[in-house]
Amino acid sequence: MGRVRIFCRTRIAVYRKYCLGRGIDVKNLSLVEVINGIKPLDERKVEEAAQHLDQLTKPPGSLGRLEEVAKQLAGIRGEVKPELGRKAVIVMAGDHGVCEEGVSAFPAEVTPQMVLNFLHGGAAVNVLSRHTGADVVCVDIGVNAELEHQSLYSRKVRYGTANMAKGPAMTREEAERAVMVGVELVAELVGQGYGLFATGEMGIGNTTASAAILAVLGGADVVSAAGRGTGIDDARLQHKQAVIRRALEVNEPDAADPLGVLAKVGGLEIAGLVGVILGAAHHRCPVVIDGFISSAAALIAARLAPLSTAYMIASHLSQEQGHARLLEEIGLVPMLRMDMRLGEGTGAVLAFPLIEAAVKLVKEMATFADAGVSTGTEEH
Amino acid sequence: MGRVRIFCRTRIAVYRKYCLGRGIDVKNLSLVEVINGIKPLDERKVEEAAQHLDQLTKPPGSLGRLEEVAKQLAGIRGEVKPELGRKAVIVMAGDHGVCEEGVSAFPAEVTPQMVLNFLHGGAAVNVLSRHTGADVVCVDIGVNAELEHQSLYSRKVRYGTANMAKGPAMTREEAERAVMVGVELVAELVGQGYGLFATGEMGIGNTTASAAILAVLGGADVVSAAGRGTGIDDARLQHKQAVIRRALEVNEPDAADPLGVLAKVGGLEIAGLVGVILGAAHHRCPVVIDGFISSAAALIAARLAPLSTAYMIASHLSQEQGHARLLEEIGLVPMLRMDMRLGEGTGAVLAFPLIEAAVKLVKEMATFADAGVSTGTEEH
Repeated sequence: MGRVRIFCRTRIAVYRKYCLGRGIDVKNLSLVEVINGIKPLDERKVEEAAQHLDQLTKPPGSLGRLEEVAKQLAGIRGEVKPELGRKAVIVMAGDHGVCEEGVSAFPAEVTPQMVLNFLHGGAAVNVLSRHTGADVVCVDIGVNAELEHQSLYSRKVRYGTANMAKGPAMTREEAERAVMVGVELVAELVGQGYGLFATGEMGIGNTTASAAILAVLGGADVVSAAGRGTGIDDARLQHKQAVIRRALEVNEPDAADPLGVLAKVGGLEIAGLVGVILGAAHHRCPVVIDGFISSAAALIAARLAPLSTAYMIASHLSQEQGHARLLEEIGLVPMLRMDMRLGEGTGAVLAFPLIEAAVKLVKEMATFADAGVSTGTEEH
Repeated sequence: MGRVRIFCRTRIAVYRKYCLGRGIDVKNLSLVEVINGIKPLDERKVEEAAQHLDQLTKPPGSLGRLEEVAKQLAGIRGEVKPELGRKAVIVMAGDHGVCEEGVSAFPAEVTPQMVLNFLHGGAAVNVLSRHTGADVVCVDIGVNAELEHQSLYSRKVRYGTANMAKGPAMTREEAERAVMVGVELVAELVGQGYGLFATGEMGIGNTTASAAILAVLGGADVVSAAGRGTGIDDARLQHKQAVIRRALEVNEPDAADPLGVLAKVGGLEIAGLVGVILGAAHHRCPVVIDGFISSAAALIAARLAPLSTAYMIASHLSQEQGHARLLEEIGLVPMLRMDMRLGEGTGAVLAFPLIEAAVKLVKEMATFADAGVSTGTEEH
């Protein structure tokens, strides 16, 4: 316990020093100021990157999405050959009051159990992060249990959400506070040299909340928005859809008010990820979006701050029904088709090597002139 | 020159020693014997891997394709937790006589120029191989130029193919010899500790040959089989389609005779890759299939030896028209959607981290029992 406190105090001190040195005081920024601080990409650098790519020994555009990512990164970082810095997958964990309706294949106690699994390094996201050289930053933003661990970022806003089938999942103020947890965490990590982020989450019941968000913000009907989550059968899926319909009736969320939607039918970990995405965009860092739940957070971020989408990179297409629609709403195209549906950030972490590949191609490939290779232009 | 000879001699000596030690004499095997030596996967190990995967801390099947790959690798290697060994992308290079018809956006001289680029480490496949920890094995199996380099595997069968629009691209004997170059190369590399292979190629004009193979073996019409390759315009695309039609009329390839199809409308590098695939399957090694041209080779391998498909892993879906159809014919599903159309093995190399991830998940993830995580079963 004492160790944890000292650890936290040291981390906050380092962060304060970083902010002071750069004139940033995110702690005192409001959400509106964070959103207003998000700027468009540097289009001059995007163009410079495009010109450089066309000089490399390959037919123009033949590296496809890798070229798109390379141009995007140039625009984000303001450099054609950027250094991305350390990589982190931020796994926000929170519980969902709606679980008492029996919407999931797993009991709610699995949320804290899996958080401990993350902290002990045994979950899929840990294995894949070690594999791709990324760090797992595990955040308790709303787990309905007491959790303590040296490596846990304890940022609990409340002990799980309330049951959205009976009333709002949380207050508007709590939703905003949870968003700011994500914003501030990114600022802290940027201060430690991180520059490439991925979104991850854990929260039994959170596909139910995400489907509700999709139904409201994407205008999707509940049947197409709600999927099988961790693996429910037909009967429970129909029940889940009925619960979502009830939550929408009870709360009357307004699509024109994304923060209100987040508070009424969202989740604490989803709010935290909204903050991670906005924070990354605010700090001009790319942020890799994982599956269904992460994309629900990304859609809220996109509605709060349309410019933030330019900082997002979609990783994979989840097997969870509704994910394709969510990505389409945001305007993102995934690179991986792995039929995954685990969450945790597992798909996003798998995209890290693709993003790094894009940067290395720009930095290391020979040009036609360097390599003495004929271009096809004289043929046309 | 002297250095090259000594280098080659040393390599052959090492390979002979390896074969002697294992009682393998691939040099004396015929193609038929290689094909007959390909065995089905070890289904007992596939089942064991499936059972292990279901004990790991995740909903059953939620890692999607990663679980499929893990099971496939268990069946290939006969071990639930296999060691894959060193990784190589085998880049077969050859020229195409049909280039004199003007089917490509690039002149034929680009083939040897790009081979030198591979050998100097400046091409996209070099960058991506360094990034993923793989070695580039560059093979001159039929370049229409004199090429010498310390790192080049000189296995020239002939100086480019003949123009298939006027007659067969090569003789049946040459096609078989080129296939055996691939088979023998894999045996040599297995002897050096390689165990995970990717197919790559370079050959201006080779999308024309591959489209012809697809038209014959896949029964596809020429318009849907032939795409823009390195980036030709509409007029040249129509011309390319006309050239392919002429090649099919002149040669009358028979779909029931895949080796005949390869000889009549194929290419030397395509034949070499057929050998790489058959060789990998013969040695019970996974082989990652790149884009359109590699998949044309894979389709021939599949027709020659249907059991070989169990050893193939599709990497990406190329932007080249006809690739989806080729993969479908073989029964493969790609993991990456990168809109790439470069060849060289670039897409296949990008899949290496995904394949290694599958193995690491099996080896490193905690089980429900280990981690004290509740399973969902009591809920159902």
